[in-house]
Amino acid sequence: MKILRINMGAEGGPKVIETDMGEYEGLGGRALTSAIVSKEVPADCHPLGAENKLVIAPGLLSGTTAAMSGRLSVGCKSPLTGTIKESNSGGQAAQVMARLGYAALVLEGLPNDSDVYEVYINKEGVKVTPNNDLKGLTNYDLVEKIKEKYGDKVCCISIGPAGEMKMSAASVACTDMELRPTRHAGRGGVGAVMGSKGVKVIVLDDSGMKMRTPKDPEKFQEANKRFVNGLRNHPVTSKGLPSYGTNILANIINEAGAYPTFNFKQGRFDGTPKISGEEYARLEKERGGNPTHGCHRGCVIRCSGIFHDKDGKYLTKQPEYETVWANGANCGIDDPDAIAMMDFLYDNYGLDTIEMGATIAVAMEAGIINFGDAEGAINLIHEVGKGTHLGRILGNGAAVTGKVFGVSRVPVVKGQALPAYDPRAAQGIGVTYATSTMGADHTAGYAIAQNILKVGGSVDPLKPEGQVEISKNLQIATATIDSTGMCLFIAFAMLDQPETFQALVDMLNAFYGWNWTENDFVEYGKKVLKMERDFNFRAGFSKADDRLPRFFKVEPLPPHNVTFQVPDEELDKVFDF
Amino acid sequence: MKILRINMGAEGGPKVIETDMGEYEGLGGRALTSAIVSKEVPADCHPLGAENKLVIAPGLLSGTTAAMSGRLSVGCKSPLTGTIKESNSGGQAAQVMARLGYAALVLEGLPNDSDVYEVYINKEGVKVTPNNDLKGLTNYDLVEKIKEKYGDKVCCISIGPAGEMKMSAASVACTDMELRPTRHAGRGGVGAVMGSKGVKVIVLDDSGMKMRTPKDPEKFQEANKRFVNGLRNHPVTSKGLPSYGTNILANIINEAGAYPTFNFKQGRFDGTPKISGEEYARLEKERGGNPTHGCHRGCVIRCSGIFHDKDGKYLTKQPEYETVWANGANCGIDDPDAIAMMDFLYDNYGLDTIEMGATIAVAMEAGIINFGDAEGAINLIHEVGKGTHLGRILGNGAAVTGKVFGVSRVPVVKGQALPAYDPRAAQGIGVTYATSTMGADHTAGYAIAQNILKVGGSVDPLKPEGQVEISKNLQIATATIDSTGMCLFIAFAMLDQPETFQALVDMLNAFYGWNWTENDFVEYGKKVLKMERDFNFRAGFSKADDRLPRFFKVEPLPPHNVTFQVPDEELDKVFDF
Repeated sequence: MKILRINMGAEGGPKVIETDMGEYEGLGGRALTSAIVSKEVPADCHPLGAENKLVIAPGLLSGTTAAMSGRLSVGCKSPLTGTIKESNSGGQAAQVMARLGYAALVLEGLPNDSDVYEVYINKEGVKVTPNNDLKGLTNYDLVEKIKEKYGDKVCCISIGPAGEMKMSAASVACTDMELRPTRHAGRGGVGAVMGSKGVKVIVLDDSGMKMRTPKDPEKFQEANKRFVNGLRNHPVTSKGLPSYGTNILANIINEAGAYPTFNFKQGRFDGTPKISGEEYARLEKERGGNPTHGCHRGCVIRCSGIFHDKDGKYLTKQPEYETVWANGANCGIDDPDAIAMMDFLYDNYGLDTIEMGATIAVAMEAGIINFGDAEGAINLIHEVGKGTHLGRILGNGAAVTGKVFGVSRVPVVKGQALPAYDPRAAQGIGVTYATSTMGADHTAGYAIAQNILKVGGSVDPLKPEGQVEISKNLQIATATIDSTGMCLFIAFAMLDQPETFQALVDMLNAFYGWNWTENDFVEYGKKVLKMERDFNFRAGFSKADDRLPRFFKVEPLPPHNVTFQVPDEELDKVFDF
Repeated sequence: MKILRINMGAEGGPKVIETDMGEYEGLGGRALTSAIVSKEVPADCHPLGAENKLVIAPGLLSGTTAAMSGRLSVGCKSPLTGTIKESNSGGQAAQVMARLGYAALVLEGLPNDSDVYEVYINKEGVKVTPNNDLKGLTNYDLVEKIKEKYGDKVCCISIGPAGEMKMSAASVACTDMELRPTRHAGRGGVGAVMGSKGVKVIVLDDSGMKMRTPKDPEKFQEANKRFVNGLRNHPVTSKGLPSYGTNILANIINEAGAYPTFNFKQGRFDGTPKISGEEYARLEKERGGNPTHGCHRGCVIRCSGIFHDKDGKYLTKQPEYETVWANGANCGIDDPDAIAMMDFLYDNYGLDTIEMGATIAVAMEAGIINFGDAEGAINLIHEVGKGTHLGRILGNGAAVTGKVFGVSRVPVVKGQALPAYDPRAAQGIGVTYATSTMGADHTAGYAIAQNILKVGGSVDPLKPEGQVEISKNLQIATATIDSTGMCLFIAFAMLDQPETFQALVDMLNAFYGWNWTENDFVEYGKKVLKMERDFNFRAGFSKADDRLPRFFKVEPLPPHNVTFQVPDEELDKVFDF
């Protein structure tokens, strides 16, 4: 595997350099993006300046025959949080990039002109060319243009207008198996960094390339089989997710009283049944969409889906749980079609659905529009896409929006909006939000597993006891999983089935010729977290930044009327390892 | 002396409570505001929430016959920086409030309604009444209304529309001797906190009240004489400042190559002669204004002035050096009338002239208007006053504006804009900007004295050596001076004349019956800084926040082509005491 670097700021135009893995040997996905950012990017640089780098890396097992190995890591110093950032996406890109032989693509420098660039990579090599016809295009329009030029066997990594405008909520879009830009590295404004580099789209074509070959193909295949069996045996990965997608959680989290509603004012939303996973699946079946679909080749869980509008025409992917929550309950909106439209617009403009939903709720709290106003919310998203002044405020996320409009209840940690679980009614995820190296991020240590789903054990969600321990262990394991290229949803099976965890370790060993034990898997994650945390300290963060906004500690959340109770001293222990 | 507390959030409406000094005995000005904020405000609270407090405190010697003792401290947790904040203003308020017997006025809680309140304080007591006729008024219009109601012997502490809109660049205005709202606690968004409390104006009437009486009146008067003599003997306080005001610095700092121009791109501005203190004084004399004027009773320096427009009509006070720089050289504007108009508008809308000038320059860097476009700049200020979306962005300062428009060169420390000295060509002030407990603030430790003015010694401005030592000592001394109610400009004489320093210590001793030595003066300042720094640490700041934006370390500044060279490890030593 090679590292492909494109210096966008080179004299005379972009310069392509390929290097060996060198000191980064053995790293993939998040471990690789965080290592390159941590080592090569000055921690105190401006995220949109020449010294930041955008690192796009498939995982250790991407491009192999391993099931579920299609996750892509996108890393940089985040313009949203100022921390190090790894934002993770499904879609086809990771598999294709890995098959093309690249462990990472690194965009460096700032272009000397205001041209918009297209990067094309196939077995012949790499071409970086200005293509100002792409300027300002939405992601769907962009992909159409790319199809016309390169056919439909390619895949795209792209930004929409939000990324071009360098908004802190801008995402990097990856196309799915149908060549639709529906899978996004959403969090942390990675799209703005891509925009600052002047790169609109990276087109990947792996025609003529083969699957990556393991050191021990036989053992690898055997381990993969055990791994797939594990996923097929676990109820979450074999039933819940395939049938209804991630939004199967809506009713569950609502029932638990941890479903943040009206900008985190209460933990249950009356309109939940109208926007639940079950209801979306029903609508999808009724209208000719599909609730069971995979976002990349090799997926055996198939939690994605396809949503059709009232006329039976494709509108967007099946909106994810986080998207439905952020733009639904959190904004007081219970119209599944409106939320699906919002999902489409976010994908099209290239925006993080979580950050934007949280932002619209803050704008509602500021009185810009009323809670429940779906049409108003859709209009706000268009403002963002057009880059009006209001749109630029909103497109820079909840923290900026709160500041600009003088709102005091702003649910962010390190500048990033909290996802779809209220930390008062699921205190384990609160620990993750507070302490994650990424700002508030549920995927960094998904304590909902033990707090609510009773996967991997059971810890009372309403009490502070035991939360630090589960969050710590999850954060460590996740850092490794995010490095393998594996979809995080494998964790449900791994947490409950030691044999499935072992199968993954065996796959890594068979592929790389390693001798990892489960302990090495854990140590790898610790190393990644330490690297990230060291970057953040150098960037100006301290333990005192590992805190939830104060209102979670003083405002009780109905219906359980709980506040966040984990003491600061306990939070400071998460990284004692 | 008493502490007056108004709980704006009390059930049934605002509640007034008077208490003794208690544990705050012996504290005044900044020491008192910082002590109350540090002790009573949760460091992690939202600056615009119910838990923040706005503390308004005259200094230890305010309300006495001591010359120069009319400075007012306004403290809170800052919505601009998130740090503790003491913002300092001239004008009449400090003397009047002290004579009314109040060491501090503390606004607490958040009102339960959206009414706008007027606070009236005279010898009879305190009245807090809703007065929605004042809603949305500019400071000048507001003062006219107050005059109609209460006559012209009162003084006002007020906010303009910016404060009502809770903008982070909103100031608290204090009226001067002519009852004009020209003196502002500008920095840190203290006006937004006053706005959040629902208080539009505090009207102070000290009719029937006397000067405060020293424990030893004779010694006090004698020390005050020596003190005044010292000021009359120093060239800066006896000649430079009275003749031309603070803007005498324009030519000096420009000559030194430390005059930030075009958003900190170069250290000299071709248009400086057109906007110098000398030129303003000439215009003022020519048009019937006045370059020599005091902003409060008892001032013997008289650095303020009165500026008339081309038709010989009063327009605004003589614009200060920082104002002229921020909105002049830094924006590429060399029209003294345009800058005076901007000064008037800032005072009228209630905005910090430094933060706003820096913000407009960032907006120029973003391409919103061009550098040098005075008319465009004036229009932008009106946008802020009107509270349009663009105006709300700008009114929240340079950091937010930079973020919203994706600008990577944003000259702020801890979210507050750098004032009028480039830290690359005056490295001592760079140390102060980086490490001050207040965010970038020249008044916190005015190293320009030794770096450029050769007052209190001489340290090469272009080299890192010796800068930490001078900044440290200045920051400590300033913390005490800001607590006395004395105008900071006394420091020029104090630094060069040990006998003037002694005279100030003698005045404090004679007034309070203390036995301070110069060492106690220094220890007092250290205590204040430690208190402030402790608050900031609890609010999430660390040593790694005590840094200049990276571009000062990597972009050389013409004409000297220097970068900021003081190493981080040195910066970390400022608070080793």
